[in-house]
Order: sequence, then structure tokens, then C-alpha cells
Amino acid sequence: MSQQRKTLPAEDGFSMPGEHQPHSEVWMSWPMRPDNWRMGAKYAQQAFVAVASAIARRTPVVMLVNHAQYANARMQLPAQIKVVEMSYNDCWMRDMGATYLLNQAQQRRGVSWQFNAWGGLVDGLYFPWDLDNAVAEKMLNLTEDDIYCAPFILEGGSIHSDGEGTLYTTEECLLHPSRNPGLSKRQIETHLQNYLGIDKVVWLPQGLYDDETNGHVDNIMHVVKPGEVVLTCCDDPSDPQYAISKKAYQVLSSQSDAKGRAIKIHQLPMPGPLYMSEQEAEGIEPSAGMKRQAGERLGASYANFLISNGQVIFPLLDERTDQQARDVLQQAFPEHQLIGVEAREIVLGGGNIHCITQQIPRSKSLAG
Amino acid sequence: MSQQRKTLPAEDGFSMPGEHQPHSEVWMSWPMRPDNWRMGAKYAQQAFVAVASAIARRTPVVMLVNHAQYANARMQLPAQIKVVEMSYNDCWMRDMGATYLLNQAQQRRGVSWQFNAWGGLVDGLYFPWDLDNAVAEKMLNLTEDDIYCAPFILEGGSIHSDGEGTLYTTEECLLHPSRNPGLSKRQIETHLQNYLGIDKVVWLPQGLYDDETNGHVDNIMHVVKPGEVVLTCCDDPSDPQYAISKKAYQVLSSQSDAKGRAIKIHQLPMPGPLYMSEQEAEGIEPSAGMKRQAGERLGASYANFLISNGQVIFPLLDERTDQQARDVLQQAFPEHQLIGVEAREIVLGGGNIHCITQQIPRSKSLAG
Repeated sequence: MSQQRKTLPAEDGFSMPGEHQPHSEVWMSWPMRPDNWRMGAKYAQQAFVAVASAIARRTPVVMLVNHAQYANARMQLPAQIKVVEMSYNDCWMRDMGATYLLNQAQQRRGVSWQFNAWGGLVDGLYFPWDLDNAVAEKMLNLTEDDIYCAPFILEGGSIHSDGEGTLYTTEECLLHPSRNPGLSKRQIETHLQNYLGIDKVVWLPQGLYDDETNGHVDNIMHVVKPGEVVLTCCDDPSDPQYAISKKAYQVLSSQSDAKGRAIKIHQLPMPGPLYMSEQEAEGIEPSAGMKRQAGERLGASYANFLISNGQVIFPLLDERTDQQARDVLQQAFPEHQLIGVEAREIVLGGGNIHCITQQIPRSKSLAG
Repeated sequence: MSQQRKTLPAEDGFSMPGEHQPHSEVWMSWPMRPDNWRMGAKYAQQAFVAVASAIARRTPVVMLVNHAQYANARMQLPAQIKVVEMSYNDCWMRDMGATYLLNQAQQRRGVSWQFNAWGGLVDGLYFPWDLDNAVAEKMLNLTEDDIYCAPFILEGGSIHSDGEGTLYTTEECLLHPSRNPGLSKRQIETHLQNYLGIDKVVWLPQGLYDDETNGHVDNIMHVVKPGEVVLTCCDDPSDPQYAISKKAYQVLSSQSDAKGRAIKIHQLPMPGPLYMSEQEAEGIEPSAGMKRQAGERLGASYANFLISNGQVIFPLLDERTDQQARDVLQQAFPEHQLIGVEAREIVLGGGNIHCITQQIPRSKSLAG
């Protein structure tokens, strides 16, 4: 049973766990928009199958799919991946999916945020986004968890929780005029505390350079565990990413987390910079919002990985830097199994492995 | 996990339980077609809520709903009823849903039949029916049961199993040229044996008079338990139903079931006959197949009830006969809780309580 709650998660004792904590499932949704994914999304679908298969080695995976693509998805995916029909506009489960919370007794509830396709009528990527916006509540009905409807716009990729009271985000995204222009930074922080049960927000100034999400935190850094993060860094002072990463490094190294710990930073290399090729741009249908074209710089980052039940599923992006990224990640996650998945086709659509996945934390309820 | 099986259920030891056996869930789907359900399906929706609520007193109910009606269904239904998005053309779960099977160890699998909207291009009720035809496989994926795809057309409402080897059906429906014109009666019987694991078919000649399903067995009789049925009878020799019911009675009273038992028959009264009123016909959009109009005789029968976990949810249809029907049912089900639900709005759409429900037998698997 899934009921709407009219109270606030924090006052009910619920908070957002860290991604390093145990998962019961990971949810994804199937790519199909021909104005975002080249060649009728066929290459992207192969990449999503590879990501789902990697996660499924340790964690049950649910793949949502529109009716029109149901039979195709069911055929392409291994039998152990559960396919569930759902309507949506594009397929970014991190951003449109519910954010799940736990209390001390490991009971589970979830937050349904408002979603406006990364900017609504100001600078959103497509219109309409009504189907995406309905996904989180449907998801919570399916998993039979109670629902908190948050009265403001937020995408799951714009926040990282360490599960011990610290939330990482960016000013670039959360204070952007296309999200919640009527709310001050202080009011947004209060909402984050109320709906995520966290104590402290660490505000990075910006996310990855030229990222069409207005700087989601999940494309520049990731939480390894409480007090420890990985951050995409850039060693070319002439690259716009250089100054952005430097400022992020300064914030992270000068602040303490909610528990008063200094934050340890692992520096990930930046791939590329990578650009969309002529051939890659050819098979994309025109779109008013996304404007994919040859020569466009890709928002590629190794920080956009998923931690799930002892595995780290990370993107392979550039053979010049993949091994170095793997080494940094293995140092940060010495006990985890690392699985690299070819992710360029996902990056061509504007995101990466973390963006297309949404973990559901393990609970003590039967439904979990 | 749900896998396609290429073998036959009977050879794998699976068969269809009786409806009187324990259920884990009952599935329904939400009415919304304005060319079948008057007044934008609003009255029908109220009736479906009442049926779902009655079943949910003892058995968890899942309600499928198209995206366009999701929010409305979620609002109208009590919280304990699980709402799940799915595409379909109309909402007859009995006929488009999967038929679930159990083996001796109480493991569960299911059959997905071909569905053609009660007659396809010959005399089907609407076109297209592609979404309905995809429901059974999606359902089996959701419940994580293995799937047998049957290579012929069959609706769940055209069969009744006693769970001990006997299947009841009608020649009118299963031999109709709009179903499987290439198959002989013998071949159809073999298919039923192979896919339902049954030993004997009891063939009634016809179903209810003027029923647009081509005479589904579930609108004229119901299995109480092995060796015992209820049958709709008619005491007016001038009514076409009189001869139909008499022939059915003769077949049932002259045959033995798969275990060699004589079949005990409880005689249910026929309501009415009932007809669609001018007012009821007014709010229905035109349709080529269904042709709903004032004066049309309704396929109303008390036999079209649902047995679920110690309850019998039966239709209230006509205050002149409701009490008599209840008395017969209480005699047939002396230990069951009887719940009468106002069902005229469902009958106006061409079916009744049994037609809009599909039970999932309780299994020993975790998913059950």
C-alpha cells in the first residue's frame, strides 16, 4: 500500500541514504526518443542493456518502457531484468524517478519532486514533460512505499547524499532561474533539509562545463562514502573546466561535512574534451530544445557512475584516460568490483550511467 | 524473473486451478472507453471501485490503468488497492489477462492466449485490439511467472476449470468462426488439454441469449467446487433463454466430470429480461462494433460472480430477483461471505463482475 503523506520527511524521521548503502533494486527506463538518441535510439538501447546487465550481476534491475517499445525491450534484455510498462517523455530515471528515504528502523518512503525537463519553458530540453513528471508517483505506487510530494522542482542528479546528514549540490543548478525562481538559497536549503532529512548542504559553485542540465552535481563529483568524494579535475588551464573544477576543489577542501569531518578528495581525470562527430549527429531528428549537432562538446565525466551493492559501474569514455580513471576509482573503492561499460552512446544523449539509473535502498518492509 | 517456455504446460505438470482455490491477488483494469461506457465511463468507474473494494476485504487487488486515467483512478480508489499503469483497449481482465496455472508443488506459471476482441474482423467489438493482446505477457512479467504463449484465440471468460481436471466451455464460443476457424473441435480440445492441464471438457451448446461474447460460459454458469455448479435458468418458455438453459441443464445432468462424479446443479434465477433505457443509451459515443442503443437486451446473469478467498462477490441486477439469487448462492456457498454489488453499470458495457476480474492463484514462490 502506498499513501500520500502530508507531513515532512524530516519531522517523520526519514532521510536519504547514501548510494554506498545496500540497494533492493535499481530502476532504469528504456531510451526511444529519436530527437535525442541517434539512429532511432538503437545504439543507446545497446548501451542501456550493457549497463543493466552489469548492475544485475548484484542487484535486481527493473526497466521501465513505453508500450510502443515493450516487445523490443523485452527481447533485447536478459530474462532476469524485469520489464514494466510505463509512460515517460525521455528516459532519465535519476532525474524523474523518486528519491527514496529510510528511517532508523529501515522503513522506506519516497519523495516525488516536481520535474520540468531541466528548465521548463525557460531552457528546458523538450516539451511537454508531463509523462516524466508522473513517473515518481507511479514508481512509489509500484514499490508500495508512502509518498511525500515536494512542492518544488528538483532532479535527482542535482543532489548527492552521504547518508549521514551531508548533501552535495551546485548553486548553478539549484539557484538557476529555470528551476525555482521564487525561492531564495535559504528557502531551498530548508526544503532540502525537510524533504531529505539532511543537516548540511555543501554548495559547489558549478557543475561540469557546458552541461545541458545547468550543472548537475552528479556529472562533476560523486560521494564514495561519508567524508570522501571523487571530483572530476582538469589539468589544462586553457580549458573552461579547469577553473570550475578548481573552485569545486577549494570548496570541498575548505569545508567539513555534517559530522564535522574534513572531506577527502580523489581526483578523477577529465576525458577528452570529447565532441559529437558528423556521423553521430547525422541520425538525430531535429528538436527545438536539444539542438544536437556535430562539433558539440559532450558532457563527459567519469564521476557519473553508479555504486550498487559492492559494484561500481563506471563509464568507459576515452581510451587515453579510461585506465587512469579506473585506477583512481579502484583506490577510492578498494573493496568494490569495478565494471567499465562503453558509455559514449549515453553521453551523446546528454547524460551518463548515474543519470539513467535510480537505486531503491533496501528496507525492512516485506515490499523491499 | 519471467521466461518464455517453449514446452506445453500439461507435459510440464501444470494445470489451471479452480476459482474456489486460494488467491494471492485479483487483477482488474479501469474502464475508460467512451464508446462502450456511458458518460465518459464515470458510472462504470464507480461500479469498478465498489467491486474492487469488496474483493479487497480479503484479497489484494491490482488495478491496471492507462496513463490518461492514472491520476483519476488513483484518487477514486482506496489506498490499499495497488494502481499500475498499463495500456489496453478496453478493460476486461478476465478475457485479456493471463490464465495462471499451478503444479503439484504449487509453483506458478501462466498462459498468454491470443486475443481478438471477441471475434476479430468477423464480429469483434472494436478495432484495434493490439494493446489488450499484449496485457497477458506484461502481467506475467510483473508477477514474475514463466509464460506459455498459446497459438490460438481464447478468452478467459469462455472457460471454467474445477481444478480437478474438468473444464466447462460452450460450443457456441469456442467453435465460432470468428475464433479459430481452422481448428476442429477435437483439435481445440487437445489445445485445452495441453495448455490447461485438464482431462475432460464438458461442452455446453450455448451461453446466455444475445450475449455479444458469442456465448461465454462464465455468463451462464459457474463452478462452485469440483462436481458442483450454478446455472442460470429461465422459467418463461416464451423467452429464448428458456431452451438454451434447458439444453445446458440436460448436458450437465447427463454427464460426469473428469473424476467420474455426477454434477450437482444449483439453479439461479434469470433477472429481467433487462433492457438498456433511453437515458442509459444517450451518453455513449458511437462505435462501429458495439452499437449500443436503447432497447438492447442486456446480457445480465447472476452466474457472472467472482469467488475469492472465502468471499463471493455477486451482481445485484434486479430487485425482483436479487434476494432469490442470493439465497441460491448462499446455499451453494454455505461457508462463504456473500457480497452483492450493484452491477447494472457493468452490464451496460457488456459484461459483469467475473468478466472484469482475473484471479492469480496463491503459489509457493516468493513472488506469489
